[in-house]
Amino acid sequence: VTTVGRARRTGPRPRHDAPLRRTTGRIITLLTDFGGRDAYVGIMKGVALGICPTATLVDLTHELPAQAVRAGALLLRSSVEYFPDGTVHLAVVDPGVGSARAAIVVTTPRAFLVGPDNGLLAPAAARLGVRSVHRLSNESFFRSPVSATFHGRDVFAPVAAHLAAGTPPEAFGDALATLEPLDLPEPVIEPADIRGEVLYVDRFGNLVTNIPAEALSAFRGSEVFVRIAAMSPLSLTHTYADAAPGAPLAVIGSWSMLEIAVRDGSAAEHFGAGIGTPVTVAGR
Amino acid sequence: VTTVGRARRTGPRPRHDAPLRRTTGRIITLLTDFGGRDAYVGIMKGVALGICPTATLVDLTHELPAQAVRAGALLLRSSVEYFPDGTVHLAVVDPGVGSARAAIVVTTPRAFLVGPDNGLLAPAAARLGVRSVHRLSNESFFRSPVSATFHGRDVFAPVAAHLAAGTPPEAFGDALATLEPLDLPEPVIEPADIRGEVLYVDRFGNLVTNIPAEALSAFRGSEVFVRIAAMSPLSLTHTYADAAPGAPLAVIGSWSMLEIAVRDGSAAEHFGAGIGTPVTVAGR
Amino acid sequence: VTTVGRARRTGPRPRHDAPLRRTTGRIITLLTDFGGRDAYVGIMKGVALGICPTATLVDLTHELPAQAVRAGALLLRSSVEYFPDGTVHLAVVDPGVGSARAAIVVTTPRAFLVGPDNGLLAPAAARLGVRSVHRLSNESFFRSPVSATFHGRDVFAPVAAHLAAGTPPEAFGDALATLEPLDLPEPVIEPADIRGEVLYVDRFGNLVTNIPAEALSAFRGSEVFVRIAAMSPLSLTHTYADAAPGAPLAVIGSWSMLEIAVRDGSAAEHFGAGIGTPVTVAGR
Repeated sequence: VTTVGRARRTGPRPRHDAPLRRTTGRIITLLTDFGGRDAYVGIMKGVALGICPTATLVDLTHELPAQAVRAGALLLRSSVEYFPDGTVHLAVVDPGVGSARAAIVVTTPRAFLVGPDNGLLAPAAARLGVRSVHRLSNESFFRSPVSATFHGRDVFAPVAAHLAAGTPPEAFGDALATLEPLDLPEPVIEPADIRGEVLYVDRFGNLVTNIPAEALSAFRGSEVFVRIAAMSPLSLTHTYADAAPGAPLAVIGSWSMLEIAVRDGSAAEHFGAGIGTPVTVAGR
Repeated sequence: VTTVGRARRTGPRPRHDAPLRRTTGRIITLLTDFGGRDAYVGIMKGVALGICPTATLVDLTHELPAQAVRAGALLLRSSVEYFPDGTVHLAVVDPGVGSARAAIVVTTPRAFLVGPDNGLLAPAAARLGVRSVHRLSNESFFRSPVSATFHGRDVFAPVAAHLAAGTPPEAFGDALATLEPLDLPEPVIEPADIRGEVLYVDRFGNLVTNIPAEALSAFRGSEVFVRIAAMSPLSLTHTYADAAPGAPLAVIGSWSMLEIAVRDGSAAEHFGAGIGTPVTVAGR
Repeated sequence: VTTVGRARRTGPRPRHDAPLRRTTGRIITLLTDFGGRDAYVGIMKGVALGICPTATLVDLTHELPAQAVRAGALLLRSSVEYFPDGTVHLAVVDPGVGSARAAIVVTTPRAFLVGPDNGLLAPAAARLGVRSVHRLSNESFFRSPVSATFHGRDVFAPVAAHLAAGTPPEAFGDALATLEPLDLPEPVIEPADIRGEVLYVDRFGNLVTNIPAEALSAFRGSEVFVRIAAMSPLSLTHTYADAAPGAPLAVIGSWSMLEIAVRDGSAAEHFGAGIGTPVTVAGR
């Protein structure tokens, strides 16, 4: 029985970071390139709920382009800090299923990350901090027999569910010293300017760059100009609503990165830009 | 512990409107134009579950065309009566994020509506009846800092979760006298005929009009003809199955509105019709 | 209160088929052709949660082509064995809504299947084994009034939720002797070769055939060749990773059927193949 919603509160209002006590199981998030057309994701959920019936399942996305490890890694990194402690993040973008690539669980102070060791988990792991990495080799936690083509169902979903149910990560296999990194382009930050590029294009056509908000603080006090695709420079504005409808703008977006957008439109279309398009920032 | 499924029932069968006692938290529905490609919706859910772990999250849709406030408002209105009392409906279609538009919670006898005050909530609020409207201004309920571009994550999801956890709506800010209305085209209802238009086109190509079932009762007893796009008039039929495959028909649809459909096909394609296409109804 | 995650385990590790005790309600899966653009699926969930608030709702898919009974039936069959005992599978692909087709619940040893009696449930029922079939005729379990066009909301979701809450299947109406079958093409299995066809194409372009893994055991010991679309024969390989990127391969896929794939690509595009394309298998 939960008392949520009945507790009398007489002191100061709780902030968002003071969660009520959970009476349900842990959260398992799912991120895949399986799409919504087939039943692959539902099948993984059935397997997980068979093992941990009280888990709360949350989809991050399943609409990644097929085998887009980098896009998946970026979306996972952009999501993990918004989930409560103890969440299990299950990610499967796995072009190498059936090959020798390892299957792993990464333990961080706040969350577990489960998936193939192909770089998919690395940016999220780096953001949260890595405590340990274990190879998934203890087959007693897998479905039996393990298929050659669907480790999401037979390996990753069972392991995520057992983690959610309290099995410690060392039970799944030997510790690994490292996990596979993911090559992400780093911005070049110099006193006079910053040279970065577009990292991700979202469904609105917003261009998320690899230039973090902190890097722009060097220009504090002077006006900042952002240049993309040989167009006139944009000033940095506070929010979408600061531009006229149809006008482009540069803004610190929800990833805490420099983002180039078009008010009520698509910056990807407006600039003919996409992943890898160079973006530079300079003060006056 | 729940006794669902174990209770012996000896009296009359319960009707759908006699729900079993909830042992979980309230329902939070989500309706956005964020799409399924990115992780924005999953992030909102992570924030909400961090505050109200026992909430049950239900997606209404996230596939609205970008910034389609009207389509979102219509879908929300078409949904709210089917959820149990106490549901929190969270809706974010927010072209004005970061501008001066208010963020609000609308309290109705059966549900809470949370979102931007841009007309999105108005039709659902009118259908359920408005008890009060409060501006979301108490920042102690928001994520901190509040981003300029993603109030779904930083303002609306936290507030919806606190509502689901029992925080009363007046805790979030001052009462407002009104909420922003949404201009929806009203049908012209006269003794001889009704002149309306297409309000919404669903994924099957069914044309939902703005002519309510009640308006057709004026013609009770005489045959009713429905005319769209200068085509031969259609008789009103009871159900899709009353037409031959590929044939058009007019029917009272699931929105309790006059709907024009094609059996096993798309009326939008058949008639070259869309939002705003005129539809007239007349008796013989 | 659940003790999930706290139990000390000192014996052998539990296998996936030893689920922890549920403290939440049963699972209801949903499979429809309603798509994600409208709110039809969310509305069904609202109705179900109003009746069985502790149900856990899992989407199989809603992105079936409109009225694709066969694709729905195949996906349902491919999913049911992966859910825990007692799951209620709710499936609505219903071109005959409002016609005389029956609405039914199929009781199997492991699960309930709820939907229209148009073949949609038949393959899953055959896979699980049929104990009984009941017609849904007891209107006290329906929403009132029942619309002519949306039985998913008014008939199937309420019945699924009452099943999840413990109502026995015989409460919903009279027993039926049979359910409508679905015509699926059967492979021709002869000593020298097997002649089958493509049954389903998934989002990756993988071609799932109607040739079961067991049928290939006849060729055990000799090399097996798979031929599709007048192309050079493929050898049977163990997994996707056994082929070079861009190369086609034949594999036993996750449906335990012969599947033709292209490593990191689409076999449907590579071979210009689709549902019904012939596939033959022969030994050397």
